[in-house]
Amino acid sequence: MIYLLSDYSLGAHPKIMQALMDTNMEHTDGYCLDRFSDECTEMIREWVGKPDADIYYFVGGTPCNTTAISAGLRPYEGVITPATGHIYVHETGSIELNGHRQFGMPTPDGKLRPEDIEKALLHHEDEHTVIPKMVYITHPTENGGVYTKAEMTALSECCRKHGLIFYVDGARLGTALTWPTNDLEIEEIADLVDAFYIGGTKIGALFGEALVLVNPEKFDDHFRYMIKRQCALLAKGRLIPVQLKALFEGGKDSLYYELSKKENELAIKLAESVVKAGYKLWLPHQTNQVFVIVPNDKIEELNKEFMFYTWCPYDETNSVIRLVTSWGTTEEDIESLLKAL
Amino acid sequence: MIYLLSDYSLGAHPKIMQALMDTNMEHTDGYCLDRFSDECTEMIREWVGKPDADIYYFVGGTPCNTTAISAGLRPYEGVITPATGHIYVHETGSIELNGHRQFGMPTPDGKLRPEDIEKALLHHEDEHTVIPKMVYITHPTENGGVYTKAEMTALSECCRKHGLIFYVDGARLGTALTWPTNDLEIEEIADLVDAFYIGGTKIGALFGEALVLVNPEKFDDHFRYMIKRQCALLAKGRLIPVQLKALFEGGKDSLYYELSKKENELAIKLAESVVKAGYKLWLPHQTNQVFVIVPNDKIEELNKEFMFYTWCPYDETNSVIRLVTSWGTTEEDIESLLKAL
Amino acid sequence: MIYLLSDYSLGAHPKIMQALMDTNMEHTDGYCLDRFSDECTEMIREWVGKPDADIYYFVGGTPCNTTAISAGLRPYEGVITPATGHIYVHETGSIELNGHRQFGMPTPDGKLRPEDIEKALLHHEDEHTVIPKMVYITHPTENGGVYTKAEMTALSECCRKHGLIFYVDGARLGTALTWPTNDLEIEEIADLVDAFYIGGTKIGALFGEALVLVNPEKFDDHFRYMIKRQCALLAKGRLIPVQLKALFEGGKDSLYYELSKKENELAIKLAESVVKAGYKLWLPHQTNQVFVIVPNDKIEELNKEFMFYTWCPYDETNSVIRLVTSWGTTEEDIESLLKAL
Amino acid sequence: MIYLLSDYSLGAHPKIMQALMDTNMEHTDGYCLDRFSDECTEMIREWVGKPDADIYYFVGGTPCNTTAISAGLRPYEGVITPATGHIYVHETGSIELNGHRQFGMPTPDGKLRPEDIEKALLHHEDEHTVIPKMVYITHPTENGGVYTKAEMTALSECCRKHGLIFYVDGARLGTALTWPTNDLEIEEIADLVDAFYIGGTKIGALFGEALVLVNPEKFDDHFRYMIKRQCALLAKGRLIPVQLKALFEGGKDSLYYELSKKENELAIKLAESVVKAGYKLWLPHQTNQVFVIVPNDKIEELNKEFMFYTWCPYDETNSVIRLVTSWGTTEEDIESLLKAL
Repeated sequence: MIYLLSDYSLGAHPKIMQALMDTNMEHTDGYCLDRFSDECTEMIREWVGKPDADIYYFVGGTPCNTTAISAGLRPYEGVITPATGHIYVHETGSIELNGHRQFGMPTPDGKLRPEDIEKALLHHEDEHTVIPKMVYITHPTENGGVYTKAEMTALSECCRKHGLIFYVDGARLGTALTWPTNDLEIEEIADLVDAFYIGGTKIGALFGEALVLVNPEKFDDHFRYMIKRQCALLAKGRLIPVQLKALFEGGKDSLYYELSKKENELAIKLAESVVKAGYKLWLPHQTNQVFVIVPNDKIEELNKEFMFYTWCPYDETNSVIRLVTSWGTTEEDIESLLKAL
Repeated sequence: MIYLLSDYSLGAHPKIMQALMDTNMEHTDGYCLDRFSDECTEMIREWVGKPDADIYYFVGGTPCNTTAISAGLRPYEGVITPATGHIYVHETGSIELNGHRQFGMPTPDGKLRPEDIEKALLHHEDEHTVIPKMVYITHPTENGGVYTKAEMTALSECCRKHGLIFYVDGARLGTALTWPTNDLEIEEIADLVDAFYIGGTKIGALFGEALVLVNPEKFDDHFRYMIKRQCALLAKGRLIPVQLKALFEGGKDSLYYELSKKENELAIKLAESVVKAGYKLWLPHQTNQVFVIVPNDKIEELNKEFMFYTWCPYDETNSVIRLVTSWGTTEEDIESLLKAL
Repeated sequence: MIYLLSDYSLGAHPKIMQALMDTNMEHTDGYCLDRFSDECTEMIREWVGKPDADIYYFVGGTPCNTTAISAGLRPYEGVITPATGHIYVHETGSIELNGHRQFGMPTPDGKLRPEDIEKALLHHEDEHTVIPKMVYITHPTENGGVYTKAEMTALSECCRKHGLIFYVDGARLGTALTWPTNDLEIEEIADLVDAFYIGGTKIGALFGEALVLVNPEKFDDHFRYMIKRQCALLAKGRLIPVQLKALFEGGKDSLYYELSKKENELAIKLAESVVKAGYKLWLPHQTNQVFVIVPNDKIEELNKEFMFYTWCPYDETNSVIRLVTSWGTTEEDIESLLKAL
Repeated sequence: MIYLLSDYSLGAHPKIMQALMDTNMEHTDGYCLDRFSDECTEMIREWVGKPDADIYYFVGGTPCNTTAISAGLRPYEGVITPATGHIYVHETGSIELNGHRQFGMPTPDGKLRPEDIEKALLHHEDEHTVIPKMVYITHPTENGGVYTKAEMTALSECCRKHGLIFYVDGARLGTALTWPTNDLEIEEIADLVDAFYIGGTKIGALFGEALVLVNPEKFDDHFRYMIKRQCALLAKGRLIPVQLKALFEGGKDSLYYELSKKENELAIKLAESVVKAGYKLWLPHQTNQVFVIVPNDKIEELNKEFMFYTWCPYDETNSVIRLVTSWGTTEEDIESLLKAL
């Protein structure tokens, strides 16, 4: 069985496993009160160009998003998200568990735009309505789309104009940073947002996301309480920075960039080949997810040998499938698929 | 100042005040454990043709909706509502306080249709997504629209087909029941839904809504705990059934129908007159809310003498105003307005 | 049947009903945005000597407590209360619905003391524990006990020393203010606390409690959002200040003081008489609740003619009953009871 | 620096690291929908003698406890715990985030007894009070105490008599199972409770707890939704069962028993030695936590070389320190401490 299902079907990149092995027998305090956390934090601060940022570590995107969002909102405030946003479609009411509304704005392609924010703001009148107070996007989008510098800047300006907190989910951030046409460096993102997270789970780590609060004063000042209350403080907390240090070290020369580039390159090859093979893409391809329109009976056939996600129906006889490349995907995997198509 | 702002700008109809005076010096137990509650419950059961319905009393629509909805849902379930629904736009996150998502479906006119429900159901995939489990509508809609028997039946069938709880907010139910073209009697509504409430606040009472659980087995079996936890159990609980008995007694010959009819008749007169006066209605008029497109400078002028709600911008020079008739509105009020227009 | 069950078994005092009748046909805006609210607020500010206090109106103590407490706490903070406190034993998890812990401190008599607060503070270590951040008491206590000036001052100083918000539930405040040995005037209470509410429901109103935020900066600055989200904003909001104006007008010469005094006097007579009749009181008597130890078979007999609450078992053959006087209790009621004892 | 601070200051036992390495390059589906989860589940079912148990995997005790408890309770229900219970003192309001009260019962030694449960049940009267519906204990207790078969049976019978769900937190279960005087096997625990979890984090794993729902019908039937909503579904879910398989394989001959025994033996040596050295234990010693009364200035001195937790003040000049042995503690560590004492 060949996996093009997700970017978290393997364990970790060998260098990350090595880092875990190397530090395994060192005693430290728990809950991210350890030297690895401190070192990783310094490294990330330097990398993103924000020496005063607060940095917190999570085992996954959902606890990270939920904690950050609920630490930024008062009880009667809500968060604006594209209707395709991860918090809206893949986190089962975690935001609502914390009492907050999500304003899920429909978009043609998964990208939020200033006009969507403006539209969401119309929801608010007075004390009878929830106040939209934060903007959430994923970069790249859930469909793989890469925000340009101009787009991200427009969102940022819109947020600042309206007093909204701007938060970016970077579960697959590396694939945006290394996308051929990308014009938005991580330091620039850090300048434009109030908070963002850099995801390790989907780019080579066993797990681990680093939340960067660029403007910590916009979030609850007892942030570690918010993490613990959300059940999201890992006992052996250092496991996250140990991995992320190995992953992020070196900035543009890091393993993170290397693996992200590889995911993108394999995806480009995959996308170009399926088009050559006569298939149509559902969306213009960007980053490591490729959405292809495939006849339903073909999908059934492919399912015997390949693991992938059937995303949505396309028309009566065709559906959209999602093919995801990961750092562990091989050229052979892709050739096998092309042969089978 | 003449009020066309809402249907709750006065106290109560004199007959209701009399009922409160008549019973004022009788001692009873609190929290709706009293003979008035029992009597009112029997009366309502008979009226709606559901001898086994559970009936609970609330001081307002918001606590009633929030309690009913949270008592019908599990933590990971949500409620489908038109995006104009009262719970979505005028109850400030009370549903979210209870941990539930609202699926606010855009509609052209405030009426939910089976296709909107079907669309909302697409949100659900698996344990990563909230399950839409209940359908909420207001009847009449927030824009005053009256569901026909065919429309309400279609919604009911759609809910049953998909295992959804069907709940109707009847804050202004009387105005639907007495609308000239209405073909849907209260017993028929009771047959089609799982629960609904009959509102007193907006039709003559000081306050008071009767929640009718037609199918109580679809709601939490410790319902009074849910009410109390929501801070919604009134100490002198009998004040609600004392009023509602006076209001509902007599079914179609009740004060409730009489006042509702009056509200409708005044609204019809108002709507016809503004059209004659050359104004355009924003929506085809039904029940006691009339939405009129008025030039912005005219609105400013009217504001000096009349209280009403400016609903939304229409275009650059005009806005939509909402004119509401209540049981206390007089022919003179309307004539004054027409003169001023 | 004679009621000594509670102080909310009747309607309202005739003067309050008259105030409702007198204002019944006046149109106003809803949700406490009306002249009665403004006037009542000015009156209360003057009465309690706090011209800058924020004042909000509620239909009952539970929504008032829950809103005030959740507007004063961050998600990881909790409230210290005597284990007999109303929020702990009679509000079914409303505080927990809002995500906050209650630290229910055992006391011998229902009175919280600084040492109880100090003990609760030991619960807090770091981000793994809830922070006790507010102190809640009822004055008088749930057992009727009246805090002396010295006691209340000690609590206040303890709260200030530890940065705790001090909130007093005055559901029956009038009976404390008019208790013969009381040495704590309402202006002094206002000086000592951060917030308190003055209850109308149990002293003559149909319903209505006035929440006084003496130090509003310690509570959420979107307080009306917190009220609405808690489902606690009454549509015809003026009904509360209309009643409370009639009740509170005149300060020490008000109907509020008059009715409270009467409740106390009847309770004193009742307590003295039951002692004379050979019964023992469970607690030293204060205010309008009298707790008497009565043989179980006697209780059964009394239940045929009298409504009262059997509070708790005392020993194998006796239980404690609670007898409550209200403004509507008559000398005859008490004599009937004494005869039956 | 020598660590006697906790049983989670190291990475994982080498055999567990090896298991992670061995499976690292195998692709699987995420979120515990993988062969390792299935295999581990079968193994645990057999080990605990419950072929029909539902088993779920968590990265830590807090998400496990919070999910299990909130999946067992209705909104107006609460959980009884010793006041020293982990959920009460070290999980920062996670239970309250889910809307549930904790009844923290004071105990002399951290062990809950049937009379404590009975006392908690007195809190419940009617719809004005939270219903205690679940009993939570840790085994061993937070102080290290091991419940005997008779004690655990008495709790179980008390729960069944009162319709309470009985849930056991086994964060350090292995140390109870292997304690010299233990008379309660894991199959017997499984017979007595409704659910329990077997903790890996504190006995050799990087992380990982296996929740065993012995009576899954007492918990929400959409359990995976409850996990995800709690942000507790790990993307690379297999990392937990891969570790737990290596840890639990072999039952009494497993690595889990071996490491637990070692932790106990070291703790016994430590406890006996400090007593010999003239120190007094705070509590009779059981399992891998040793509580010793030490002069405050001595503590200061020890802090220079040893990491441990100062638990609580004992008297004016002494405090209680907690010394914890882990699978990575060495004989030398203990000798160093004894020398320093």
